Amino acid sequence: MILHGYWRSGAAYRVRIGLALKGLAYSQVNHDLRTGEQAAPDYARLNPQRLIPALEVDGVVLTQSVAILEWLDERFPEPPLMPSDANGRAIVRAMMMAIAADIHPLHNMRILKSLKKDFGQDEAHSNAWVGRWMADGFAALETLIERHGDGFAYGATPTLADCLIVPALYSANRFGVDVTPYPRLVAAGAATAARTTSAHPSRQPDADPA
Amino acid sequence: MILHGYWRSGAAYRVRIGLALKGLAYSQVNHDLRTGEQAAPDYARLNPQRLIPALEVDGVVLTQSVAILEWLDERFPEPPLMPSDANGRAIVRAMMMAIAADIHPLHNMRILKSLKKDFGQDEAHSNAWVGRWMADGFAALETLIERHGDGFAYGATPTLADCLIVPALYSANRFGVDVTPYPRLVAAGAATAARTTSAHPSRQPDADPA
Repeated sequence: MILHGYWRSGAAYRVRIGLALKGLAYSQVNHDLRTGEQAAPDYARLNPQRLIPALEVDGVVLTQSVAILEWLDERFPEPPLMPSDANGRAIVRAMMMAIAADIHPLHNMRILKSLKKDFGQDEAHSNAWVGRWMADGFAALETLIERHGDGFAYGATPTLADCLIVPALYSANRFGVDVTPYPRLVAAGAATAARTTSAHPSRQPDADPA
Repeated sequence: MILHGYWRSGAAYRVRIGLALKGLAYSQVNHDLRTGEQAAPDYARLNPQRLIPALEVDGVVLTQSVAILEWLDERFPEPPLMPSDANGRAIVRAMMMAIAADIHPLHNMRILKSLKKDFGQDEAHSNAWVGRWMADGFAALETLIERHGDGFAYGATPTLADCLIVPALYSANRFGVDVTPYPRLVAAGAATAARTTSAHPSRQPDADPA
């Protein structure tokens, strides 16, 4: 398997966590989002959205981190990263979407660039705007984890939701968002991060020097 | 089943299409997003995100349109709205996420309100900003449908991806986005819309008069 990623991409980080939890080996091809490498024609042929990540497996190209994670759990069932019942899976997917649809799209790099270029927002205002949506989403997640979690976001073992929570908390730190109001979310993220240290952005081959 | 929705919410529209394709009966409780009814305490208890839609089934509350659609297809398998193989499901989920994560979050009502209030954007600039992300996403979807579709987004029958494409095209019309460069996307949307006319926003009990 070849993961097309970028060390600091939250979406690529999700997939690296899923691969680490499954204990799967893979190689990496990295595309620097700062210089727009993901828009190169060769990559655009692989992924028409020209976004990170993509996973190449046996000549098939999978895109979109959430779709890749679901595929990983279907193809490599052990350890399971989804509950065994439909209602449980729906809760885990709702947690995933609370991040993938309602938080992350508002702070990925193309939007941060646009806030600056199109709306003239400096970094402080831009971070405050991002922080508002993050706080909204984290508060809802904290309630869901209180209802359904037990050390992890859903139950007592990691699920696909935790694969998204770790990068979301990493981003919160980058944007200076206070996460102390969300202790269960933070605990779930820490428990998952501790099991997947190899997936951390700073450990990737293309990472900036510390 | 009780669908908590709003006639013009694209996310609620997705779920109505899924319910219509499955031939399932349901009742509606609608929350006017313009006046913030979804933030009322009773609804916030049901859905801590205070977003539309939610589906109440036998005392369980499901949230997030994509999670609800996956649940519907798991619990009511006929007609199937997902391919039978893992690679196919990954493609359909990638198509869903191209809309659910990379287009819709940038033009839902809370963001449109924020573009006006926080960044002082008038409707023309705001629509142009939304239109840019829509065009990016639609171009990628057109390529994916060319590769995988056959009248519908994936193959020759509707899938969960088509449940998202119809509302995305409805939004494109609202925002004045030219969709003529995406004939396969438009055809898939039209084919699905023709089978699910009861789900159209104008047909909902809370719709504004025409």
